Amino acid sequence: MAQLYYSMKPTPMLKDELDIVIPTIRNLDFLERWRPFFEQYHLIIVQDGDPSKAIKIPEGFDYELYNRNDINRILGSKASCISFKDSACRCFGYMVSKKKYIYTIDDDCFVAKDPSGKEINALEQHIKNLLSPSTPDFFNTLYDPYRDGADFVRGYPFSMREGAITAVSHGLWLNIPDYDAPTQLVKPLERNSRKFDFSLRYVDAVMTIPKGTLFPMCGMNLAFDRELIGPAMYFGLMGDGQPIGRYDDMWAGWCVKVICDHMGWGVKTGLPYIWHSKASNPFVNLKKEYNGIFWQEEAIPFFQSVTLPKECTSVQQCYLELARLVKEKLGKVDPYFNKLAVEMVTWIEAWEELNSPKGTEAKAPNGKKK
Amino acid sequence: MAQLYYSMKPTPMLKDELDIVIPTIRNLDFLERWRPFFEQYHLIIVQDGDPSKAIKIPEGFDYELYNRNDINRILGSKASCISFKDSACRCFGYMVSKKKYIYTIDDDCFVAKDPSGKEINALEQHIKNLLSPSTPDFFNTLYDPYRDGADFVRGYPFSMREGAITAVSHGLWLNIPDYDAPTQLVKPLERNSRKFDFSLRYVDAVMTIPKGTLFPMCGMNLAFDRELIGPAMYFGLMGDGQPIGRYDDMWAGWCVKVICDHMGWGVKTGLPYIWHSKASNPFVNLKKEYNGIFWQEEAIPFFQSVTLPKECTSVQQCYLELARLVKEKLGKVDPYFNKLAVEMVTWIEAWEELNSPKGTEAKAPNGKKK
Repeated sequence: MAQLYYSMKPTPMLKDELDIVIPTIRNLDFLERWRPFFEQYHLIIVQDGDPSKAIKIPEGFDYELYNRNDINRILGSKASCISFKDSACRCFGYMVSKKKYIYTIDDDCFVAKDPSGKEINALEQHIKNLLSPSTPDFFNTLYDPYRDGADFVRGYPFSMREGAITAVSHGLWLNIPDYDAPTQLVKPLERNSRKFDFSLRYVDAVMTIPKGTLFPMCGMNLAFDRELIGPAMYFGLMGDGQPIGRYDDMWAGWCVKVICDHMGWGVKTGLPYIWHSKASNPFVNLKKEYNGIFWQEEAIPFFQSVTLPKECTSVQQCYLELARLVKEKLGKVDPYFNKLAVEMVTWIEAWEELNSPKGTEAKAPNGKKK
Repeated sequence: MAQLYYSMKPTPMLKDELDIVIPTIRNLDFLERWRPFFEQYHLIIVQDGDPSKAIKIPEGFDYELYNRNDINRILGSKASCISFKDSACRCFGYMVSKKKYIYTIDDDCFVAKDPSGKEINALEQHIKNLLSPSTPDFFNTLYDPYRDGADFVRGYPFSMREGAITAVSHGLWLNIPDYDAPTQLVKPLERNSRKFDFSLRYVDAVMTIPKGTLFPMCGMNLAFDRELIGPAMYFGLMGDGQPIGRYDDMWAGWCVKVICDHMGWGVKTGLPYIWHSKASNPFVNLKKEYNGIFWQEEAIPFFQSVTLPKECTSVQQCYLELARLVKEKLGKVDPYFNKLAVEMVTWIEAWEELNSPKGTEAKAPNGKKK
């Protein structure tokens, strides 16, 4: 019956309701490959690193570009919550957007093809995922029951078939999988030879990650409902001056999942795939990751055990409560978490400032505006 | 790294450690199609309905066959726990087996083909699923990390990468999906025309159902570790004289999942597919299901909220505690649950009797013995 409700309609492409956020340090030639899919959307480009460097954007795209000087100017002292020299800076783009939905993608990700050879419109699939409900409370063995042609299987309680609002759509990758540095290091064959690269397995599924279960959220190919969960999509403190990198999206994922579970919203994973063009250097990655690898052994059990109080009825309230608990429970793991807890609060303050009626005037980027 | 540990080895086919259990009311011609895959295994056939009817088994299979007279003779007064005129009777086969593993399949299920056209060895995939660990505590976005070519993604805690013992492997179906009667009824197009049959979507994935999440377990294509979870694989009271049918596997699935979660064992779902040849009659199904559809709205929240006490350290103890709770909490939904709770206890008593050292002598079937 799910099919009767949700299929047979063309997917609304949400042109005026979705921004694409791209963190980058280089010219955005990769956009040429996405032109047929992205050209009608507004892009928010967050330039990382040296703000004096000019970044070339292919002709014809509608974009605004923010560099570090813009971030400092717009946020003032609150700019301390935005990472520098790390793609975690992308979350600034979530904050300055005025749209309901965000799609964020890395600049080394290209259009993938499905097994029939057809180019995958990743954005369209993300929109399908976000506009159809989720099933966080009971597992459907045929995966997303709201997908065209799918349904709930025998034994799925009818009272749960309305599902939950979907807040996040987590897409996957073909070609180079998202491995940590140790896994990259022990898999030289996969790095060097296509013969041993099994990572191309295309799994034709979307599914809801059940309530109470955490997952490793990757920021490479991610869409979400900014109006719902935006204030929790903080990518943390990474990169320059910080003892950790490559855990920005993981941090956001833990926070977002705990808050979605509390609010009764769903998180989907699976389709769409993008084509991830190159593996980053495992030796460099190891240096960025080693604290994260160590700390996640404490952080994940912490997030698994967190229960947010009923009094937290907005994402902002949930997030501030999480910040308090991070300081209380993870501060003893490393002083870094005390600093992070402070900036989690700063992030919410900055979010509120920019997303209040008068705050929107402060958003004045460097590049073109729509 | 998962790959380094688990792949590159041929799958042990467990010929002496696995029984195939088939409930049936008809001649088992369908076995001809499974000959290359099943012939070397021992079959336990549980004949349902009229015991005077002779059932033909194709030549060359090694089997034992039990009809209702055998069940009554072997279990005596405890035969009351085994359903009659319902495929729930299959669980008698689990009880009389002496093997570590069970694979159970319906007699209207045939060999499916993968997208490349190759016939799928369902049993081999189930064995792979059972012999590799599960990941119930954290979600791996690239699905089963122990599968050949797969691995844990970035952000998966290293301390959890050993995984959990796998107790159950739940396989899926191509052609006719496992829908309830109302869903069958509202989808006449899918029933009548292949053009609208999207159910053939082949999802190339195996995954662990996370801890704390229930799922609708279908008994059509199911394998499990009998020594681990066998005593919880009771398919309940269905069919003749009972106010409910088609909830046998669902009941077992709820109980099994709650107990696996308590014991720290994993349940996998996904591959392998079998080809389900025909949809059962939705009008007949509706008559069997309507109480179940109604009662599951109470039963599922009950199972979702059950916490088994630490003192329950064996599956038998867990199951008896569940029986007590079923009587206490679901007895008020309908008197049926009081009767079911009684037979849950009978089931455990019968299991213990047949699976004690002297109990094995009592197993004397009608058909051939290995």
